[in-house]
Amino acid sequence: MKEVLLETKNRSEFVDITRNIRKLIPKDMKEGVCIVYVPHTTAGVTINEGADPSVQQDILNQLDQLVPWDQPFFQHREGNSAAHIKASLMGSSVCITVENSQLQLGTWQKIFFAEFDGPRRRKIWITYFSD
Amino acid sequence: MKEVLLETKNRSEFVDITRNIRKLIPKDMKEGVCIVYVPHTTAGVTINEGADPSVQQDILNQLDQLVPWDQPFFQHREGNSAAHIKASLMGSSVCITVENSQLQLGTWQKIFFAEFDGPRRRKIWITYFSD
Amino acid sequence: MKEVLLETKNRSEFVDITRNIRKLIPKDMKEGVCIVYVPHTTAGVTINEGADPSVQQDILNQLDQLVPWDQPFFQHREGNSAAHIKASLMGSSVCITVENSQLQLGTWQKIFFAEFDGPRRRKIWITYFSD
Repeated sequence: MKEVLLETKNRSEFVDITRNIRKLIPKDMKEGVCIVYVPHTTAGVTINEGADPSVQQDILNQLDQLVPWDQPFFQHREGNSAAHIKASLMGSSVCITVENSQLQLGTWQKIFFAEFDGPRRRKIWITYFSD
Repeated sequence: MKEVLLETKNRSEFVDITRNIRKLIPKDMKEGVCIVYVPHTTAGVTINEGADPSVQQDILNQLDQLVPWDQPFFQHREGNSAAHIKASLMGSSVCITVENSQLQLGTWQKIFFAEFDGPRRRKIWITYFSD
Repeated sequence: MKEVLLETKNRSEFVDITRNIRKLIPKDMKEGVCIVYVPHTTAGVTINEGADPSVQQDILNQLDQLVPWDQPFFQHREGNSAAHIKASLMGSSVCITVENSQLQLGTWQKIFFAEFDGPRRRKIWITYFSD
């Protein structure tokens, strides 16, 4: 398991971590699976389009509309329930297959760290398993 | 990794791909894990009830209500931000255990390709790993 | 694959299953991956904060607001479409890495069985794979 550190800059933000993950493919691995895991509870990970940055912003804005920061029924005292909810909606891990030593992503896919309560110092855990 | 091709027929649609995935279990595999991966950014994959098709329609209609096609804040020029968002809400992959050469699904569970911007030609990538 | 049984007590409820999963780590496993799988279609699994129980309640209440039990467009006759939708929003499985015979969770993370149509007798399937 390898740990990647990153510093997010905004309250809500997608950070493209595809390159960080690709760099950690073990040199002797031909086929296997990669698990990208976010060990936080107010951030998640998702795979989506990377070509047009407005897609990332549209996702974040839609999530903000669905899960507003202030809800009359929120009871968690830290005031970041919205971030916890968005983290569960996106999920804490993604799985990607490795073939011919290459991460198998679709043409337009990038892997995004999904910050929902930044800016913060964050960690990602990346594990490669051989078949 | 095996690739399955499919053609979706509607803008939003669940396609039951359970049989396609089951057919690809390697004959010599007794125990392992199956990863079903969707390499698109406007489609996802989810596991839910297959017996009553109205469940699939209810899920799609609810997602349409939550994430309308026209939002004043959408900036992505292709006009399919809603599809990108629903793809991230469902997720790009599912993991299923294989035991006794059988895909271990619950009684009512089927695996669905979740089309959110069809009709299109689509791909699914299926990988089986032995323990 | 090991099966864990649980009985939920409420219609919607998060049950902390971290300890059940930790107990099943094979004694001879040093490194590997754990897949927690929910074989139901009106329940899911998610990883989120366990320290303050109000986080779990805030997530459930937000999901109830997003996906009400009664929607004019629901057609599924069993009347539990909301539970099916929430199950797909949370997901049917989570992956966690095992290192040094320990489940690698973040400081505040717990694994929750997400009941959306209880109270019911439920099952969880847990599989550990060695590298």
